[in-house]
Amino acid sequence: MHARESQGSVPCPFCPGNEEKTPPEISAYSSPGRLPNRPGWWVRVVPNKYPALRVEGQIHRTGDHLYDKMDGLGAHEVIIETEDHGKQLEDLSDERLQDVFWTYRDRINDLKKDPRLEYILIFKNRGVAAGASLAHAHSQLIATPMVPIRVKQEMRGADDYYERRGRCIFCDMVQQELAQKVRVVDENPGFVAITPFASRFPFEISVLPKKHRSDFSEIPKSEVIELGRMIKSVFQRLNRVLDNPSYNFVLHDSPLKDSHLEYYHWHIEIMPKLSQTAGFEWGTGFYINPTPPEQAAEYLKEIETIAG
Amino acid sequence: MHARESQGSVPCPFCPGNEEKTPPEISAYSSPGRLPNRPGWWVRVVPNKYPALRVEGQIHRTGDHLYDKMDGLGAHEVIIETEDHGKQLEDLSDERLQDVFWTYRDRINDLKKDPRLEYILIFKNRGVAAGASLAHAHSQLIATPMVPIRVKQEMRGADDYYERRGRCIFCDMVQQELAQKVRVVDENPGFVAITPFASRFPFEISVLPKKHRSDFSEIPKSEVIELGRMIKSVFQRLNRVLDNPSYNFVLHDSPLKDSHLEYYHWHIEIMPKLSQTAGFEWGTGFYINPTPPEQAAEYLKEIETIAG
Repeated sequence: MHARESQGSVPCPFCPGNEEKTPPEISAYSSPGRLPNRPGWWVRVVPNKYPALRVEGQIHRTGDHLYDKMDGLGAHEVIIETEDHGKQLEDLSDERLQDVFWTYRDRINDLKKDPRLEYILIFKNRGVAAGASLAHAHSQLIATPMVPIRVKQEMRGADDYYERRGRCIFCDMVQQELAQKVRVVDENPGFVAITPFASRFPFEISVLPKKHRSDFSEIPKSEVIELGRMIKSVFQRLNRVLDNPSYNFVLHDSPLKDSHLEYYHWHIEIMPKLSQTAGFEWGTGFYINPTPPEQAAEYLKEIETIAG
Repeated sequence: MHARESQGSVPCPFCPGNEEKTPPEISAYSSPGRLPNRPGWWVRVVPNKYPALRVEGQIHRTGDHLYDKMDGLGAHEVIIETEDHGKQLEDLSDERLQDVFWTYRDRINDLKKDPRLEYILIFKNRGVAAGASLAHAHSQLIATPMVPIRVKQEMRGADDYYERRGRCIFCDMVQQELAQKVRVVDENPGFVAITPFASRFPFEISVLPKKHRSDFSEIPKSEVIELGRMIKSVFQRLNRVLDNPSYNFVLHDSPLKDSHLEYYHWHIEIMPKLSQTAGFEWGTGFYINPTPPEQAAEYLKEIETIAG
């Protein structure tokens, strides 16, 4: 097996044969009898070499007049999605893709045991425009000692809706989208992919489980299969319509200590990076989107996809 | 006077002699006796040729089950900051720079008369990485029929603080920063420039009036002079330390119908574009900043600036 070179002549640290270039692995899906940090894996989880947060230490909270500080305790891991440098997530077989999602679930369930952690965000940056520094297919996981502000805002809105209507707003959205069909990109028995109403970005996509599910970590086997198929369909469509765009992908799950929420519903947000976020967006929190989601859905749903 | 060429061989629509390449001008600072849409101006305001919002029409609000819609009524203008294609804001003489800020004030006071408008954001994108499509120095103005969500969030936080403490949080911040001096980049009698505590971006800067001021449109002459000097100082420093970075600049003012607020304080936020906003930031609303603001201030304050 040859270690693949990435840009320039630096060997790719995520390729088999280069396992010593990452910190020692946390876990892997691999052939029976393989030794850790050796080839023979097909999904491999390693600590990020340049972590934003570390597990070591304790959380101290201090004040400085107006300001509040706390230590950056947490975890920052890399999920290498395939041993094959030339493949992207959507190029994997159904079985391999499922193992990536099982890895997400395993890591959440493992990190959940640490009572200092409050939230886990799984995300993926693909392409230089999306902030990716390595081309080899990978996702990242950051565990934080507080619930992120964006998730809090989303939960607060969903909770308000639940208080008034007694229903999950995400379930209502799934129902409305499936009825109207103007923003549906694809659906299968477990999932629906939509271009959300009033999308911030051109060709932004949300993938939601059709049934009410607040905890990704409790995803049943049948839904892992359906999720893999949906993700494959969505990225094949985006690649065809937008010529392999750079994108950010985030998995919004419920907080680690808030399971079985009636009002929250996990989902994936996919944001192709086609335009710059500029002064207007930073100043207002509003987004100018030249491609209405209804039109994006029109383009995306016409693409023929390859399963398997 | 020669019309300057921008990238490629397309003539720059913001250069003197090319006035017909923009929609007819709204206002200008120019020599006495000059005809509209002719050379002889040094600040020129025109409607954006590709507006995000238009003044024509009425605001209709409609519902579609879960979703709310309203028309995109508003205004989108371009403030061409100088006739000189080769100059940036910070290269202008004190007098010329003041005319740019008087133009901001004039436009706010004029648009305020339209009761359908609720907010005006003045912003500036410089450089391709910041989303600018033209190199000729310019700012933009977007007037919206609702108060932007970011401004609302900022106001809500400031209002909460005022309710509890009876003081403007921005005034308290100015006071703490001037006392601690670890994040102060520059100060003059009217303004202070700081690298804000827990900045989102490397070398992010906020410029605040030292006295409590909620309404940019009521800025006194003495403060326009001091603001010009502060902006010049800040950009000379950023250009030297970061080698002419791309940046976004936003002026956060109070809403058009909320003047003389005790709890809000107008300010300018400057965000150099040195890194990509990626999955973690989009997913959490948290920002990983490799350059602590205290260190950025250290670098920036050492630069010698040229006044005048």
